[in-house]
Amino acid sequence: MKSIVLFGAGNVATHLFRAFAEIEDYEVIQVYNHREKSLEFFKEKVPVTTDFTEVFPADIYLFALKDEAISLLADRVHYRDALMLHTSGATPLAAFESFEKAGVFYPLQTFSKNKPVDFKEIPICIEAKNESQLKMTEQLALKISPAVYKINSEQRRSLHVAAVFVSNFVNFLYSQGEQICRQNKIPFEILHPLIKETALKIKNLSPFDAQTGPAKRGDSDVINEHLGLLNEDQKTIYNLLTNSIKKLHGKEL
Amino acid sequence: MKSIVLFGAGNVATHLFRAFAEIEDYEVIQVYNHREKSLEFFKEKVPVTTDFTEVFPADIYLFALKDEAISLLADRVHYRDALMLHTSGATPLAAFESFEKAGVFYPLQTFSKNKPVDFKEIPICIEAKNESQLKMTEQLALKISPAVYKINSEQRRSLHVAAVFVSNFVNFLYSQGEQICRQNKIPFEILHPLIKETALKIKNLSPFDAQTGPAKRGDSDVINEHLGLLNEDQKTIYNLLTNSIKKLHGKEL
Repeated sequence: MKSIVLFGAGNVATHLFRAFAEIEDYEVIQVYNHREKSLEFFKEKVPVTTDFTEVFPADIYLFALKDEAISLLADRVHYRDALMLHTSGATPLAAFESFEKAGVFYPLQTFSKNKPVDFKEIPICIEAKNESQLKMTEQLALKISPAVYKINSEQRRSLHVAAVFVSNFVNFLYSQGEQICRQNKIPFEILHPLIKETALKIKNLSPFDAQTGPAKRGDSDVINEHLGLLNEDQKTIYNLLTNSIKKLHGKEL
Repeated sequence: MKSIVLFGAGNVATHLFRAFAEIEDYEVIQVYNHREKSLEFFKEKVPVTTDFTEVFPADIYLFALKDEAISLLADRVHYRDALMLHTSGATPLAAFESFEKAGVFYPLQTFSKNKPVDFKEIPICIEAKNESQLKMTEQLALKISPAVYKINSEQRRSLHVAAVFVSNFVNFLYSQGEQICRQNKIPFEILHPLIKETALKIKNLSPFDAQTGPAKRGDSDVINEHLGLLNEDQKTIYNLLTNSIKKLHGKEL
């Protein structure tokens, strides 16, 4: 049985805690967070603390914290024989360079506090200082998800950018669609099935092959009609993305 | 029993034909298409024709054709007592103005030829020349989907633009994410669960509330690091969308 101390009490920490509660061979023995209030959920289930000097010795220290807090707190860990892991997409493994045993355990998903997640569908990107530590990290990851990927720090930086494109920026486009609906008294829910199908389509089709719409067809009539319906900010976005699609699909600009 | 002649043999026509085959009270009695080859799928199931003079009399003529073909072909219909319907998001009801009975039957979804669809999950946006024709159109729509919306031509134009934002443009961002992955030898499938969750999240959360990421947080360190990893075209898109998100969420530009 390997012991884990979990640092953090946010979305990622909460979902990981739930997932670890259901596996064998590992046990979360303590949760640390600097604010007591966030520990409510944990404190009936496991010892908790807000005082770093009271952190238990453990086999694994798992940092599910904001990027800037990781190095800051890690340097205060005195049990130098533990495997140090963090869950951040943007923080390099080098943040743990002063430790003998260190790795990354990055679950690539957008977590919401009250929405249950199924870790079996969440890729976990792992990295470690050497092969044997990578093995240890992989063993833990495989307990909660079959989708474990070995991704180095440089790749993970790029993966994080790609995630911004396909998630943060995509969500922003959803908000633009909602705005257009609201301005025209159309219920946004009409677009939900289209949004879902667009997202699921690319499981079987590359996004290049899945592209449809007036820009891909080079249909200037529809494009000009659309531009006439938009405000200045929306027009700027519409033009840039339309021209980018045209360029990608070899249509004249 | 009401008879339907279906014009068109593309994705929308094919999926509608399948859906109509399973309902009561309506029967597709003929499929017209100008190219014989596309009629292969239909010809063992129903009479087909490529000759407009051979089109049967029917209660409903349903045009599931490219925008530009709708008015062109409709003017050749001689059975002036039929209800004329088209399935286009971009074509106004006015395209049928010379007909007594006319409406729009617009299923809002992205259709792929070989991917089965469940019409029960597809919104159908309807419109007609008057209340009784709207009722007739609604009756047909409700046979294949519970999600029937009354949307006028002006609203439908805006809905079509909104659909470009949440589907065509979103798919383009997926292609950018894939490109970044490819350039860094990362399997794109790692991002599939994130893409799916981002799309499903907005069923319960408004896109505004669902927004996450460095732009929303105003995290310049991460934003600058990301920009350093992108090519010029990607940078232009990243900057515009990041600044738009910042603006929407009241962060300084």
